[in-house]
Amino acid sequence: MSLIVQKYGGSSVGSVARIHAVATQIDALAGKGHQVAVVVSAMGDTTDRLVELAREVCPEPDARELDALLATGEMVSTALVAMALNQLGRKARSWNALQLPIETTAHAGRARIERVEATGLKKDLAGGVVPVVAGFQGRAEGGDLTTIGRGGSDTTAVALAVVLEADECQILTDVDGVYTTDPRMVPEARRLPCVSFEEMLELAGQGSRVLHLRSVEFAARYGMKLRVLSSFEPGPGTLICQEDPRVEAPVVSGIAFNRDEAVITVAGVPHEPGVAHAILKPISHGAIEVDMIVVNTAHEKSVDFSFTVHRDDYQQALELTREAAARYRGASVTGDDRVAKVAVVGSGMRSHAGVATRLFEALFIESINVRLVSTSEIKISVLVAEKDLERAVRALHRAYGLDVAVSH
Amino acid sequence: MSLIVQKYGGSSVGSVARIHAVATQIDALAGKGHQVAVVVSAMGDTTDRLVELAREVCPEPDARELDALLATGEMVSTALVAMALNQLGRKARSWNALQLPIETTAHAGRARIERVEATGLKKDLAGGVVPVVAGFQGRAEGGDLTTIGRGGSDTTAVALAVVLEADECQILTDVDGVYTTDPRMVPEARRLPCVSFEEMLELAGQGSRVLHLRSVEFAARYGMKLRVLSSFEPGPGTLICQEDPRVEAPVVSGIAFNRDEAVITVAGVPHEPGVAHAILKPISHGAIEVDMIVVNTAHEKSVDFSFTVHRDDYQQALELTREAAARYRGASVTGDDRVAKVAVVGSGMRSHAGVATRLFEALFIESINVRLVSTSEIKISVLVAEKDLERAVRALHRAYGLDVAVSH
Repeated sequence: MSLIVQKYGGSSVGSVARIHAVATQIDALAGKGHQVAVVVSAMGDTTDRLVELAREVCPEPDARELDALLATGEMVSTALVAMALNQLGRKARSWNALQLPIETTAHAGRARIERVEATGLKKDLAGGVVPVVAGFQGRAEGGDLTTIGRGGSDTTAVALAVVLEADECQILTDVDGVYTTDPRMVPEARRLPCVSFEEMLELAGQGSRVLHLRSVEFAARYGMKLRVLSSFEPGPGTLICQEDPRVEAPVVSGIAFNRDEAVITVAGVPHEPGVAHAILKPISHGAIEVDMIVVNTAHEKSVDFSFTVHRDDYQQALELTREAAARYRGASVTGDDRVAKVAVVGSGMRSHAGVATRLFEALFIESINVRLVSTSEIKISVLVAEKDLERAVRALHRAYGLDVAVSH
Repeated sequence: MSLIVQKYGGSSVGSVARIHAVATQIDALAGKGHQVAVVVSAMGDTTDRLVELAREVCPEPDARELDALLATGEMVSTALVAMALNQLGRKARSWNALQLPIETTAHAGRARIERVEATGLKKDLAGGVVPVVAGFQGRAEGGDLTTIGRGGSDTTAVALAVVLEADECQILTDVDGVYTTDPRMVPEARRLPCVSFEEMLELAGQGSRVLHLRSVEFAARYGMKLRVLSSFEPGPGTLICQEDPRVEAPVVSGIAFNRDEAVITVAGVPHEPGVAHAILKPISHGAIEVDMIVVNTAHEKSVDFSFTVHRDDYQQALELTREAAARYRGASVTGDDRVAKVAVVGSGMRSHAGVATRLFEALFIESINVRLVSTSEIKISVLVAEKDLERAVRALHRAYGLDVAVSH
């Protein structure tokens, strides 16, 4: 008997028919003797509709109230899934974040899970009851409802799996696994039977959209077995696991990309300690996540400094950067929010040379201009104009031989 | 400076435009220097739509999960009203029942408020923040969400007013006060400038639909000043107040009615102590409210026993009654769910004879058959066939001179 945490995303519970399908699936798993705890997202596009409703009421809704509003979406789906399970004769109980509670920081819209109280869940599981927990939401000190950012239900699921010491955390979604790149863009893309935590981290972070970044990070930190599966059709999915040193990893596992990027460049700041800190501090204080950071010292006394943020944060980040840069005479701030990021990801990159060369060659052949380059041990990311994104992804998928099915 | 609790019903917050209108109204009241706490219902027909959604998922939704589902409706409107107020520069904060908390009994769908924790509300009011509280919902011991029955937001408002020691509790709705009867049925119906708690209690209980029964009871018990106002147009509304002994009350203030009745009759049960208890106990255990109870001893050794329940509870009540009556040989159980109740209500009835005579005369002229009669100090209720309801109400409104405007 295993203890399995399953998370069903918005499209998996997007209609009454889907809720029945999901309940049947959970009931079947529990019927095999497994203990099952479930995390659900809001139905379909509920969260988007609630955001729209809030914007109709006021253009810049109060962050605390927006969280209180959005949290209702998941409460609705937990109650419906629990009802459907009870209807099948499978005892179930809905839980929201205030009830468990799931404690988070107080950053409205971007809260972080700090603690999950598992007493109620353990009692349910011991009593043969399937707990159905609202994803995406939390409770800040003082009792405010918070949300933990888009895709946060994945993180809720992993947090629950960790605290319950589950055998596996399954993310059920509308895709049947992790692909070498987005199959909607590249038809030749292939499902990977397994990827390492680190690769997944890079793939998710770059916008492969299958799993929420923080959930992968979280699972990696606690060694939680994470599996991506389709809730629409049976299949093994993709297992995200610790890297197995005995198996030689492929040089490049996949191509990730992210359209919603914006770049800000600060040129002509003095080349002295503390400059990067002074410029980035106001941005992190504004709870804006900075992604790529590239610093280039082309001149003796001044530094050029570029970084990327999510496109939604562009205007705010630009203003904060202008304020911060104003103290340096001669500094100029420019920006562009029509950029996209492409990354090649692969654990095998560590021990293979020539990966970068092939990347630059492939993009050169396509006449695609590279705006920024940033590298990590298992990833090379480049920033390109948004209009070049699709050609860049296709070219790289081909260049690294991902179009051809190989055993992994 | 007064402390006022305002409650806005579903139609008052039924659209984005209505939410803005309500926020403007609250802001204006607070702008006059009053401390204002607000209770809101779910937007428009949200509760009905959620019930429908639940029924689509399963015909008989689990009661606990149904409550968890329904409670989200009020959470949505509190967040939106708080946003709209913040937008106007009036600080506001949404509260749900788990957050305050509002503690209730555990009867899903029919919970009773046991305690309202006012610390958070008092802090808000002292800090110039308008607390916007979700009506209709509560928290049972153990943390389950509960709901306190249809129209329960009125009760939430009175409970808050009592615990905050408010100067007045205002129920803002889509009618501008309490009428002599439903103006949709009788165009000659008139708004009453004030009614006594007792009259209101009878009027609300009989289905005048302006105020929730329990809220009036609650306000009466604690001597809370309660006012019914329109949220759509300004006006004095109707004040529901302690009876003023110096003013002579009219004999009959209004005609109340209720379509959703069902009657159950048990005939031929032995005439011995404990029979009524034995028959009604299973029904009250099923948390079904019994309204009229009429016992008639026409024969020496047996008793005929009739009572009414809400039409929704008819089938369940009928089954429970059949089970209970089965132990008495010769007892028979019959029922009819096509009945309606009409009542004449007036504090002046106490000191006036002939009220009942006029009632029977008016119904006789209309050839309306009276199925049951039940009297209290300030009310005479009769049960008639549903098809006769409208003619009965019109006839009585005329018979007691309510068609003619008189100073009250």
